[in-house]
Amino acid sequence: MFETATATLDWLGLIVFTITGALVASRKAMDFVGFAVLGTVTGVGGGTLRDLLLGAPVFWTERPAYLLAGVLVSGAVFFAAHLPQSRSRALVRLDAIGLALFAVAGAERALQAGASGTVAVVMGVVTATFGGVIRDLLGGDSPVILSREIYASAAAAGAVTFVSLTALGAPREIALGTGFVVALLIRAASLRWGWTLPRYRPPTGLPHR
Amino acid sequence: MFETATATLDWLGLIVFTITGALVASRKAMDFVGFAVLGTVTGVGGGTLRDLLLGAPVFWTERPAYLLAGVLVSGAVFFAAHLPQSRSRALVRLDAIGLALFAVAGAERALQAGASGTVAVVMGVVTATFGGVIRDLLGGDSPVILSREIYASAAAAGAVTFVSLTALGAPREIALGTGFVVALLIRAASLRWGWTLPRYRPPTGLPHR
Amino acid sequence: MFETATATLDWLGLIVFTITGALVASRKAMDFVGFAVLGTVTGVGGGTLRDLLLGAPVFWTERPAYLLAGVLVSGAVFFAAHLPQSRSRALVRLDAIGLALFAVAGAERALQAGASGTVAVVMGVVTATFGGVIRDLLGGDSPVILSREIYASAAAAGAVTFVSLTALGAPREIALGTGFVVALLIRAASLRWGWTLPRYRPPTGLPHR
Repeated sequence: MFETATATLDWLGLIVFTITGALVASRKAMDFVGFAVLGTVTGVGGGTLRDLLLGAPVFWTERPAYLLAGVLVSGAVFFAAHLPQSRSRALVRLDAIGLALFAVAGAERALQAGASGTVAVVMGVVTATFGGVIRDLLGGDSPVILSREIYASAAAAGAVTFVSLTALGAPREIALGTGFVVALLIRAASLRWGWTLPRYRPPTGLPHR
Repeated sequence: MFETATATLDWLGLIVFTITGALVASRKAMDFVGFAVLGTVTGVGGGTLRDLLLGAPVFWTERPAYLLAGVLVSGAVFFAAHLPQSRSRALVRLDAIGLALFAVAGAERALQAGASGTVAVVMGVVTATFGGVIRDLLGGDSPVILSREIYASAAAAGAVTFVSLTALGAPREIALGTGFVVALLIRAASLRWGWTLPRYRPPTGLPHR
Repeated sequence: MFETATATLDWLGLIVFTITGALVASRKAMDFVGFAVLGTVTGVGGGTLRDLLLGAPVFWTERPAYLLAGVLVSGAVFFAAHLPQSRSRALVRLDAIGLALFAVAGAERALQAGASGTVAVVMGVVTATFGGVIRDLLGGDSPVILSREIYASAAAAGAVTFVSLTALGAPREIALGTGFVVALLIRAASLRWGWTLPRYRPPTGLPHR
């Protein structure tokens, strides 16, 4: 049951992030191989770095079905990328859903691998953000993780919620679900109402080298 | 004998890719250390990522001769980079040879490490393309993997050929040689006649966000 | 005692590089999360890649105190980044100190993990330079490792000094200290007097493709 819950989040996150990578490929008018590479790398990138950092086997080397799913989903986007009314809005929304899914799924995998709570939160953030970082770097966009809205913090909040509830003895599904909702709501609210955190300003207000 | 065949491909690929990295260093008028860093990183980059993803020991940590070769080859290019009539043409041709060498050598290493056929093909593509991706990112060029011509697909075709022939029981050297030739011919033909794959176009032909 | 010496260098290097990452965040007027991400990634980046390449457990997954230190130091910079008279000069000087610290600490860790002398030198350079490479890439700056002054060579000189003295039987602290001083002096002299290595020039002096 719990195995199912995590695996489901993993699969959903992979599909959602693969779509965002393929949407960027469509914006650059790439060919199908470009779609497959950029889509799949975006989908599996965060989990790959998480597994490397944890010293765990990289998840898709044991279950190549993940890679085939990435290629198939990218292929579907190749023919369907014109359907959403606004591609950039679809991209941002799917990215928010993937961020929330991977924040809790990444933290869960880290706990399963025996990591401490602090490391689990970091792994949630790594899993949730790294696919998008590669997508933006390869696609020539400015990385969304450094954007003005709340992004990495939303993933961190979701991962902290999940890890805390788990430490308090909450059932796995409740902890996963609550963490997901927390991350998604914070990110969605930030996008909807332009929430930001206070930014650095030199006290004098004078230009500063 | 078979050990020799793979090791030979590995060494040739490393030398060829190191030269391409050092040629980029010469275009940027770097000093010798820049040549050694950019050349060696390009030469060992693909195999390094492959080994990390496979959970295998990184090949050059066990045989530092690979690193010394990278530094020596880079040094030779420092004094010889003016010899080819067209440096950019030499770079593209050597890159094609390295791509074909590493596509089969990378897939072979993955099979040796016990990976499935699908994963072996992916590892062939990773080994063949990642050195060039780092080279282009560090050198400030647009990554050749996202270029308009057939690139990652040529590596994939070579790796698929090698893995399929191996699965069908072909002798290792035949499988390696055929895969190499397939990858090289596809890449060369794409460069020679401008072969491309169909690119994404929105059906309406209207601009699309 | 020797454990203490390496651990001290590691901690100092991490703090110093975290400050440089947070200073870049202040230049981009990021929010606190941007400071924490960019600072911590810069501080732990070099050691993380070193551990991955060595096949060793990533150091901060076993001691999360490193991550907490990165966040705390970044937070301190958030409030103190206006204090240095010249932020860019502070950044370059701290980067030089971190480079020298990590060059010997990285080589030492590699020797402890059983690596050969050549690999230990490479790991010293990787540890010393990779955090800064990520910082510059994420911050949108041109990577300092490709700058005109002596940078990677200073790290290599310090690591070679440390590895050679260790091979000659020098006490660990002497070898570490001497290597650190060598790396720092070379880098500082390069900055102070504009030392550079000879750069590539085509013999003809004619423009060259």
